[in-house]
Amino acid sequence: MKPERIDLLVHNIGVLVTMGGRPGPRRGREMSDVGLVTGGAVAIADGKIVAAGAEADVRAEIAGLPVERTLDAEGRLVTPGLVDPHTHLVHGGSRENELVLKQKGLSYLDILAQGGGILSTVRATRAATEDELYEKARKSLDIMMLYGATTVEAKSGYGLTLEDELKQLRVTRRLDETHPVDLVSTFMGAHAVPSEYKGRSAEYVKLVIEEMLPEVKRQGLAEFCDVFCEHGVFSVDESRAILAAAKELGFGLKLHADEIEPLGGAQLAAEMGCISAEHLLAATDEGLKAMRDAGVIAVCLPATSFNLRAKSHARARDMIEEGVPVALSTDYNPGSSPTESLQLVMTLACLHLGMSPEEVITAMTINAAYAIGRGDQIGSLVPGKQADLVLFNAENLAYVPYHFGINHVDTVIKKGRVVVAGGRLMED
Amino acid sequence: MKPERIDLLVHNIGVLVTMGGRPGPRRGREMSDVGLVTGGAVAIADGKIVAAGAEADVRAEIAGLPVERTLDAEGRLVTPGLVDPHTHLVHGGSRENELVLKQKGLSYLDILAQGGGILSTVRATRAATEDELYEKARKSLDIMMLYGATTVEAKSGYGLTLEDELKQLRVTRRLDETHPVDLVSTFMGAHAVPSEYKGRSAEYVKLVIEEMLPEVKRQGLAEFCDVFCEHGVFSVDESRAILAAAKELGFGLKLHADEIEPLGGAQLAAEMGCISAEHLLAATDEGLKAMRDAGVIAVCLPATSFNLRAKSHARARDMIEEGVPVALSTDYNPGSSPTESLQLVMTLACLHLGMSPEEVITAMTINAAYAIGRGDQIGSLVPGKQADLVLFNAENLAYVPYHFGINHVDTVIKKGRVVVAGGRLMED
Ligand SMILES: [Zn+2]
Ligand SMILES: [Zn+2]
Repeated sequence: MKPERIDLLVHNIGVLVTMGGRPGPRRGREMSDVGLVTGGAVAIADGKIVAAGAEADVRAEIAGLPVERTLDAEGRLVTPGLVDPHTHLVHGGSRENELVLKQKGLSYLDILAQGGGILSTVRATRAATEDELYEKARKSLDIMMLYGATTVEAKSGYGLTLEDELKQLRVTRRLDETHPVDLVSTFMGAHAVPSEYKGRSAEYVKLVIEEMLPEVKRQGLAEFCDVFCEHGVFSVDESRAILAAAKELGFGLKLHADEIEPLGGAQLAAEMGCISAEHLLAATDEGLKAMRDAGVIAVCLPATSFNLRAKSHARARDMIEEGVPVALSTDYNPGSSPTESLQLVMTLACLHLGMSPEEVITAMTINAAYAIGRGDQIGSLVPGKQADLVLFNAENLAYVPYHFGINHVDTVIKKGRVVVAGGRLMED
Repeated sequence: MKPERIDLLVHNIGVLVTMGGRPGPRRGREMSDVGLVTGGAVAIADGKIVAAGAEADVRAEIAGLPVERTLDAEGRLVTPGLVDPHTHLVHGGSRENELVLKQKGLSYLDILAQGGGILSTVRATRAATEDELYEKARKSLDIMMLYGATTVEAKSGYGLTLEDELKQLRVTRRLDETHPVDLVSTFMGAHAVPSEYKGRSAEYVKLVIEEMLPEVKRQGLAEFCDVFCEHGVFSVDESRAILAAAKELGFGLKLHADEIEPLGGAQLAAEMGCISAEHLLAATDEGLKAMRDAGVIAVCLPATSFNLRAKSHARARDMIEEGVPVALSTDYNPGSSPTESLQLVMTLACLHLGMSPEEVITAMTINAAYAIGRGDQIGSLVPGKQADLVLFNAENLAYVPYHFGINHVDTVIKKGRVVVAGGRLMED
């Protein structure tokens, strides 16, 4: 259906990455086909894409319609709004003290065993008021948007009591209602066994299954359920039980799988029909094959392996060659990945995962959108989808990961509205 | 001599890093003593520090003097302005195309052998007008300042003809005159053997020694001379000859040493009395001992080894334990380190070089200042030195490298003048 007018026409785009193509997450060589147009334009009405492509074609398509506003991209690179499909956005406190502990050689699991790590963030999150959590997360969400993110997944999992998990999830809902960035909410009560349940993880799993999951569902506070399946956290059997209960209630499923040890998390994600499996540094060939066959998206988190000084990284090349769709994310969290910048993740994915700039942008747009169940609404610039766009101060796709450590975003458009201009929040 | 008034009083500083201590570059354990004051203030007059320390002490010291302007730091972390002692700031073009070549497994020297690498930047720099080079470098210098740098060294070395080297150096001089950041100029005609001298490096060395060095000196366009001593670039003997000629003319000396192969560059830097030696990934124990005995500062460049996906990094811990003063720098250049962010370098120094946040700030302030011959004027907040300060959105020193990939700078003060406020250039 043709609109009556064009609200915004973005023109004089140097390189336009539409990510157009078949519906569904992209695999293998498809990840290199980013629907690139030189000299493009994007026409927007009612917050949605009307036309995107070569400027002459777009102008022909909207001929006769009044254009309310034009935005000269001045030759910039334009991509779909970036999607960050895995964050622990809402939390209390920060953990810079662990930087020194890690330098002394303590591992993630060592620090956890000392009551540090996740558990110190749990204490800080429980102690924080809802407003404090909101204010802190809002600042981080602003930074994410300034670096190009327009949709962000956010997990609970630092409360670990029914009330504190609900508190985190309410903050996510409030952010979704008040911030330009759209949030997708994931319940992750099974992020760690809280210290009061130490040695009684079965009881905690029971609490998650019998009390938390039903109440989160009743209040409609989360769309997905995620579990940290790892040695010393939740076993494969415990993870399976939680995911099964969540599935029964109608949650979509995600799984932190095979980050440190090859427990078979990738296989479990396939078995349970998870929409995505995360980390996967230690996933086996069998695990990847099972994911491919079940259509599970691999969410790789190179900022985490970078920050943990991992000896190796997720095998993104093997995943792509096996036909597993790959997405990328910051894993923003106060312990293993305190960064909001998807642009640094681009660089890390090129350097450490061997991904090309084209594969990287696919992994941060269309595949990331599918990894959070939004593939039909965002992740590509095709007619009918949300008008979420980023204008980069760059002449080509490779320039952004190449020129690293800074912010290349000039403009962010969310649902047709300019929310970042000249690299600054519009409220400013 | 007491001033008649205070131009600017920065107060309510949460944590103040003065870097006070004995004069001279810091070594060993001294690198951990950053002169930290909780609840500080800094009083500034005529662009210089009048007093810095505990707020009560500073206020007592300036009692009776009129205060023109106060700046509430709102509990922020304040450090001396960051010093970037090794950059290739002025150049034409960018080399994002090499990202894909590197992914195919080509090494730095492979790409150079193909006429790419430095030589493609040489072509772009020769082709650029002086105004084009100025505009491009000015943008990068703005970014450096936004990320906290107040003094930056800049090398020539992409011209490789007398005229093109002078062109680069004139751009550096013009930036120094027009930009708030102070520049320190280094002539590096011996950065690569230009393609027209392929196989005739002795003739090119002769050109550098007999024509370039004297003319650069005559025009007063550079304070230091630097040479890239590496297999396939300039040999130890060639490097020695160039440095000797430069010394004769009164240049200070620097050396790109032992980056890839242990040729003995560290020893040569010691032998020639270089103020600093750079890279040093392959420096031997003997080389480090020679540097220590000669008082040569090691400038480590972890963004370069990160971006080149080096298997190992500079042995900063060994250097510190040996008593070699360590400085850190971006090595900003379009090939091996396209980043302006000293804050990302902080993170990389913590993660890859095992340096503590205290050692890192020492390496980026007082030691970096001494590495470019400015230790008596900048690098610490002590009375009489230039009032170059950075206010970070952080409550402690570790927070900045910990929370990585973004910009924590709120305010930059250069010679007593606020040049960045709220994370933005003041001209804006
Ligand atoms: Zn996670
Ligand atoms: Zn260099």
